[in-house]
Amino acid sequence: MKTKMEMLIAQRIHDMPKSFVREILKVTTDPSVISFAGGLPNAHTFPIVEIAEATACVMKSNGQSALQYSMTQGLPALRQRIAGDLQLRSGQEVEPDEILITSGSQQGLDLIGKVFLDKGDTVVMERPGYLGAIQALRAYEPHILPVRLGDDGIDLNELKRVLDHMQPKLVYVIPNFQNPSGITYSSQCRQTLVDLLRERELLLVEDDPYGQLRFEGESSTLLKSLLPEQTILLGTFSKTVAPGLRLGWVHAPREAMDKLLVAKQGADLHTSSFSQRVLLQYLADHDVNRHIQNICQTYRRHRDTMIQAIGECFPKEVRFTPPQGGMFLWVTLPNGLSSLDLFDLALKEKVAFVPGTPFYTDGGGKNHLRLNFSNADETKIRIGIQRLGKAVKKMMG
Amino acid sequence: MKTKMEMLIAQRIHDMPKSFVREILKVTTDPSVISFAGGLPNAHTFPIVEIAEATACVMKSNGQSALQYSMTQGLPALRQRIAGDLQLRSGQEVEPDEILITSGSQQGLDLIGKVFLDKGDTVVMERPGYLGAIQALRAYEPHILPVRLGDDGIDLNELKRVLDHMQPKLVYVIPNFQNPSGITYSSQCRQTLVDLLRERELLLVEDDPYGQLRFEGESSTLLKSLLPEQTILLGTFSKTVAPGLRLGWVHAPREAMDKLLVAKQGADLHTSSFSQRVLLQYLADHDVNRHIQNICQTYRRHRDTMIQAIGECFPKEVRFTPPQGGMFLWVTLPNGLSSLDLFDLALKEKVAFVPGTPFYTDGGGKNHLRLNFSNADETKIRIGIQRLGKAVKKMMG
Repeated sequence: MKTKMEMLIAQRIHDMPKSFVREILKVTTDPSVISFAGGLPNAHTFPIVEIAEATACVMKSNGQSALQYSMTQGLPALRQRIAGDLQLRSGQEVEPDEILITSGSQQGLDLIGKVFLDKGDTVVMERPGYLGAIQALRAYEPHILPVRLGDDGIDLNELKRVLDHMQPKLVYVIPNFQNPSGITYSSQCRQTLVDLLRERELLLVEDDPYGQLRFEGESSTLLKSLLPEQTILLGTFSKTVAPGLRLGWVHAPREAMDKLLVAKQGADLHTSSFSQRVLLQYLADHDVNRHIQNICQTYRRHRDTMIQAIGECFPKEVRFTPPQGGMFLWVTLPNGLSSLDLFDLALKEKVAFVPGTPFYTDGGGKNHLRLNFSNADETKIRIGIQRLGKAVKKMMG
Repeated sequence: MKTKMEMLIAQRIHDMPKSFVREILKVTTDPSVISFAGGLPNAHTFPIVEIAEATACVMKSNGQSALQYSMTQGLPALRQRIAGDLQLRSGQEVEPDEILITSGSQQGLDLIGKVFLDKGDTVVMERPGYLGAIQALRAYEPHILPVRLGDDGIDLNELKRVLDHMQPKLVYVIPNFQNPSGITYSSQCRQTLVDLLRERELLLVEDDPYGQLRFEGESSTLLKSLLPEQTILLGTFSKTVAPGLRLGWVHAPREAMDKLLVAKQGADLHTSSFSQRVLLQYLADHDVNRHIQNICQTYRRHRDTMIQAIGECFPKEVRFTPPQGGMFLWVTLPNGLSSLDLFDLALKEKVAFVPGTPFYTDGGGKNHLRLNFSNADETKIRIGIQRLGKAVKKMMG
């Protein structure tokens, strides 16, 4: 029987399942389990001493401001810094007023949902799609329409059909080292994609948490540069500095910014002045690009170790995408096999991952799994993949 | 003409006006203006050195955890600390699992709206009501029903009529030193209020940002203690430590907590691990109750200075509530006079406040104004009230 409190729950929340991944993460708190399940950066890359120094400096020079309420849009100097970096990257002018500082890019997704989605609006997502976006946007009760992701990016024929027949309001994509698939959109896919979207009344949301974590190859053009007026770009410091600061940003056209500010103010007034000032000081005192290069070198080694171990320990029938960056490797089991069954077998071998199904809002994904290679060290990666290989072989008989 | 982006805005945001107070705060950035408009704590009370030391300590002992992703519900040790403090205050058992750490209590309001409000649900608020709550809840498109606030608390006869006829889903109150009125609910009002709400299917939201800022008199019973199963209590460290950390909390029954966690995860995954660890260290190393006593002494002096200056500078026909704590003093002009007109005259005299009208969602409040006494120092309070008195006299001819 429902309690009084449960009777009062809004419809949108009744429809939102508990996060499957959160449940998995609970299972993997056992320290003897090697987990490839989470999406955590490697904590050894965090600039701990530098953040401690930056904080000491901020508290000395700007302690009162760092601890006081501040502007809803975020610290002007930090927005200027982000706009400047973005300008260097895209070659296009970016104004600090087009940047909103958020509590991680997850909050950017929530604010976009709040500002743009009426109940029943259609949202196009990648298939498989990012769980955090599914969860954030679902709170606004849209109709989610997954479009297949191929090796070069979103399936443009399928997308065109959807655009012609469903009039979606929002298209959400992660063009670089997508979560969960590791796929990166080709230049041609990017160009055709924006050509398809231009002239239509819809919003493109480009989520780019991993774009700077490229291990090889040339960096790709931002969709925001190709279709500036219709695109909102989301970025974060979670993967380049540290997620615990909860600092991300939204780069949006001015007419959207006004509304995002109203939503942000209602959501939490503003992002932590303390975190913002500390990050700004850290960025001023250190070469963050060099720091990012170091992260890339580490993650590249992790990826290579994982790929090598898979080659040695998995049956040949198991395929995977070799990503050029990011944090995830996407594994495909032979048809008919279930990664949910594998999950149980793997847990007995003390290794965990995320099965494919939660990334598919319309069912499917049963023979896929996502492996994170950023968090565990190389020794654990080797042992974990050996354990997983054992579980796979057991399952395949 | 609307731009393409504007055409896509959701209905809920069309209906949300820009924050009037935010607009006022923009006007008052002129440093020659003495502002009683904002709701800012006094930055001289912030424990800057102590927070710097706490950060150094955290980065040394727990740097990796402080910079890594963490639990959606918040740091267990911080929740335990909050539960313990609350238990001391209420005399009732509080479990850490009934506490959720939020990005300020503003986020608590947003999450409650998200979890409980369907479009068209009725929400009872105080009249005058807190702007931040109005703004947070409005995003979920409820019907807001203001109930008059008397000197002893919410008008219980009016509330009973509303409860009998409108079946509200949620009642939102600030029983201690209410914003904007400074009113504190009497014990009898509290008891009758919970008796009225018990047995009905509705949620009581008790917002208590100022409860610990009591300058005199005995502290009052929490509504949460009187009606535990139907009440969600919101608290914050913004007024007792520092708002820049953006740390608040929600104390909710377990069956609501599950849903709040789903909403929190979608909203921003979790509150800053960095801020949480630093606050926890600060609370472990210092006597925060003594710190709060010091804040109270300062604010009490500020309040007394403001009341004395009003006595000296305002015409006798102008009345005000003398609050026993908190940060605000509520002024009533003689009937027929408009605080919006006064705002323009006052700005010419280089002093600012918030006119009453934005606190009234159904019109009214024209002859009221809110004065903040926490932020400006005593000299500025004296000069500011002199200036305001001059403007009042000018208006009254």
